[in-house]
Amino acid sequence: MTARVSSVDARTGAVLELEAAPADTGRVDAVVRAAASTAPALSAAGIPGRARLLRAISDAITQDQEPITAAADRETALGPARVHSELARTAYQLRLFAEVLEDGAFLDITIDHPDPDAIPAPRPDLRRMMLPIGPVGVFSASNFPLAFSVAGGDTASALAAGCPVVVKAHSGHPQTSELTAAAVRRAAVAAGLPAEVLTVVHGRQAGRDLVNHPLMKAVGFTGSLAGGRALYDLACARPEPIPFYGELGSINPLVVTPAAAAQRAERIAAGLAGSFTMGLGQFCTKPGLAFIPAGPDGQRLTAALVEAAAPVTAGAMLTPSIREGYAAGLAERVNHPGVRAPLASVPGELVGPHVLSLPAAELTDLFYEECFGPLVVLVEYSTVDELVAALARAPGTLTATIHSGTDEDGPVSVAARAAAVLRERAGRLVWNGYPTGVAVTWAMQHGGPYPSSTFASHTSVGTAAIHRFLRPVTYQDTPPGLLPPELREENPLRLPRRVDGAYQLP
Amino acid sequence: MTARVSSVDARTGAVLELEAAPADTGRVDAVVRAAASTAPALSAAGIPGRARLLRAISDAITQDQEPITAAADRETALGPARVHSELARTAYQLRLFAEVLEDGAFLDITIDHPDPDAIPAPRPDLRRMMLPIGPVGVFSASNFPLAFSVAGGDTASALAAGCPVVVKAHSGHPQTSELTAAAVRRAAVAAGLPAEVLTVVHGRQAGRDLVNHPLMKAVGFTGSLAGGRALYDLACARPEPIPFYGELGSINPLVVTPAAAAQRAERIAAGLAGSFTMGLGQFCTKPGLAFIPAGPDGQRLTAALVEAAAPVTAGAMLTPSIREGYAAGLAERVNHPGVRAPLASVPGELVGPHVLSLPAAELTDLFYEECFGPLVVLVEYSTVDELVAALARAPGTLTATIHSGTDEDGPVSVAARAAAVLRERAGRLVWNGYPTGVAVTWAMQHGGPYPSSTFASHTSVGTAAIHRFLRPVTYQDTPPGLLPPELREENPLRLPRRVDGAYQLP
Repeated sequence: MTARVSSVDARTGAVLELEAAPADTGRVDAVVRAAASTAPALSAAGIPGRARLLRAISDAITQDQEPITAAADRETALGPARVHSELARTAYQLRLFAEVLEDGAFLDITIDHPDPDAIPAPRPDLRRMMLPIGPVGVFSASNFPLAFSVAGGDTASALAAGCPVVVKAHSGHPQTSELTAAAVRRAAVAAGLPAEVLTVVHGRQAGRDLVNHPLMKAVGFTGSLAGGRALYDLACARPEPIPFYGELGSINPLVVTPAAAAQRAERIAAGLAGSFTMGLGQFCTKPGLAFIPAGPDGQRLTAALVEAAAPVTAGAMLTPSIREGYAAGLAERVNHPGVRAPLASVPGELVGPHVLSLPAAELTDLFYEECFGPLVVLVEYSTVDELVAALARAPGTLTATIHSGTDEDGPVSVAARAAAVLRERAGRLVWNGYPTGVAVTWAMQHGGPYPSSTFASHTSVGTAAIHRFLRPVTYQDTPPGLLPPELREENPLRLPRRVDGAYQLP
Repeated sequence: MTARVSSVDARTGAVLELEAAPADTGRVDAVVRAAASTAPALSAAGIPGRARLLRAISDAITQDQEPITAAADRETALGPARVHSELARTAYQLRLFAEVLEDGAFLDITIDHPDPDAIPAPRPDLRRMMLPIGPVGVFSASNFPLAFSVAGGDTASALAAGCPVVVKAHSGHPQTSELTAAAVRRAAVAAGLPAEVLTVVHGRQAGRDLVNHPLMKAVGFTGSLAGGRALYDLACARPEPIPFYGELGSINPLVVTPAAAAQRAERIAAGLAGSFTMGLGQFCTKPGLAFIPAGPDGQRLTAALVEAAAPVTAGAMLTPSIREGYAAGLAERVNHPGVRAPLASVPGELVGPHVLSLPAAELTDLFYEECFGPLVVLVEYSTVDELVAALARAPGTLTATIHSGTDEDGPVSVAARAAAVLRERAGRLVWNGYPTGVAVTWAMQHGGPYPSSTFASHTSVGTAAIHRFLRPVTYQDTPPGLLPPELREENPLRLPRRVDGAYQLP
């Protein structure tokens, strides 16, 4: 008898057996082949067909929002407000990728006309455009059952690029995944495409089989460093290696300059409390390390932070293994020499916020590792040199935040010095705000040096995420009748393009 | 006593001991640290400073062209005409990257203004731009002592991006490498930058140490599948993995449709003879497999090819190990069942052209592997289905070429069917021409699915090569005084940019 996939209520532990079963190697092979067989249809659909697909998916998950959000809340305990707003974000991001398609710049159309007199050698007619890279595997995140899951950013950008998708559902929200997949597949058919442009599989071995399958051409992943690195290593070790775009964990340092602390310690503390406890700290952009000045202003900030965070209600974490990992990471830090606990909350079934603090001189490598959960570590620095040296030890991170004083914007300010060090380590620099909350826009960067992501040159949020799933091809001296419409001289699709070196808007 | 680096005359085997020594691990560490220390200066130089650097390097290697080309000819036996034209190409490509800088689009400036009413959530001010990825290692190619070497495309694109470069010189042309490096370093100083923006190291272990050094952030490589894959594996296995942009070998299939063979078998044969024997077939774009129709037109083509290739003079290959590799690969193919040799030339010290042929039905995996040297394998197909099936077995390749008949440009033509299959496997599709000869332009693509390159999404030739060495950073709600000039609202550098979703030319 085949084992069933279990959907667990994150609050009560109650188990629901789903119709779905973990996919064995044969099933993964069949799923991937079916996905790959839809690639020609997705490609042929072109910009209008794929924009229609994305909008149809957006509509379908909105239509199904009640059952989907109910399942997501039950499986993650994130709360109805959060899962509803996450569904809205997911629907929005699908529509945004339809706009990316219609904008056309993602195709990077580049035309060089032939030039018999070119230096250093005569030049043929060359026309370059982006193609879909091929079938993409998507690994859902535990902490975003919608926005980084079946119909999330990886899927939206891959489908936009023209790549069929196979999703490895997260074991923390299999029912949400099944319901979302059903909406996506119904939308695909409504948009005139095969349902198999997206399929969900369950099970850890299915994930490995997906990464190893010869027809897969890229992977998107959001999750832990250990799990992500193991899959990254698989992707690199294939006979034909494929890019594994992984987001693996981030410490998101936050700096409060002496001027900022003097001017508004309490206000910063209130914002920080909201940011590190939001969703029980289960965000990849949670500020894990906050650097504050030693002395009275820092003490005021600490006191205000404790006051603001203390009333936050303890809650259920996403899964038992995340809760266990958090408890272990917390214990290790609490027991570290020099660490104090201005706000402590012993984690049991429910988990509440925790504030630790230590002098910068006591920092060890442990504190530069992510601890996923409602913990912030306050690091008290005595001099700016000590601050800068501590920041320079930070590994790659998704974000880094600087709270600076009013008018503290000169090139030799503490803020400027901190920014110079952090820019080398982070994908996004935030001023006078908080890193949680990642806007889905053209200018967003969600990815940074390792381990925050496996390829610092890419993003998993925002319109640029589509570039992960494209590859260029150049047509040389091609008879006009054999050119794809995107590359035709008369520009029938009215695409922006670079012609003989000059960029032209349509 | 320290071992010296040996420069070998490719024609006579005469050895010249250079002043340089193979770099041990300590020396590589010192070199990489010195390179990394120049990163702030390269970044601060900005577009004008780096454009000046690239043009100064172009001038310096042109000024030193006599000693450089003399060394290159002696070390590679490629001949004075070839090395002179390669130097011109190298100088040109440096200048082209100065134009890429001044164009500014490579920075991908993207600005989203804040929007408190944004759907699904209020949005901060976000400004995204590209930064240099960090120090880059460049592995020179055996077969391009200038254009894919010390001052070649990898170096030009990395310096343009703002990345310091450490070159692992190819053992086949160490003297050329030293002379070129001296010109580059002189030019750097003349352009007001430290000489250490580029350093050359020698030795196989130095190459491994370079890939493993924690300060290195990316690698560019052109070479063999075995050597490249070993280094790729090192790069992926680092504690902090880095992208290894390798070009590892390519079979470059060429198709002659029945219509093309009927119309101009002799003309195609003459061009093909020139292409596969150019530089003794030591090109990554050498057509290795040519598909021709079985029957009289194919026979005419074969006869004409033999006639055109037979007079090509035997010559010295680049290095003894390349010659040995070629002899072994050739023997394996000659002895394969079903293979005939319309033109044979037993490889000794000097190597001449070789034409093999076999029916498509006899093809095995061996023929889909690169054989680096003056060999083309003619594959005779009996039906279009047989042709398409044989093409579908091809691995990733840098190029694929189609010779089609006059007016053969319909969507169901043989040419269209072949193109549809080859487009999935190649980075560049060439019509009615030959793949050797890679123009350095905006629209060039030199890279394709594995094993032709390790990342199909990138190119090592043409202006897009710069993207390999950049990573994005987003500034959120940054005080104007702390924004880099590239991101300032008033656009002081007059850069092209996308603002609130709309692309704007300056």
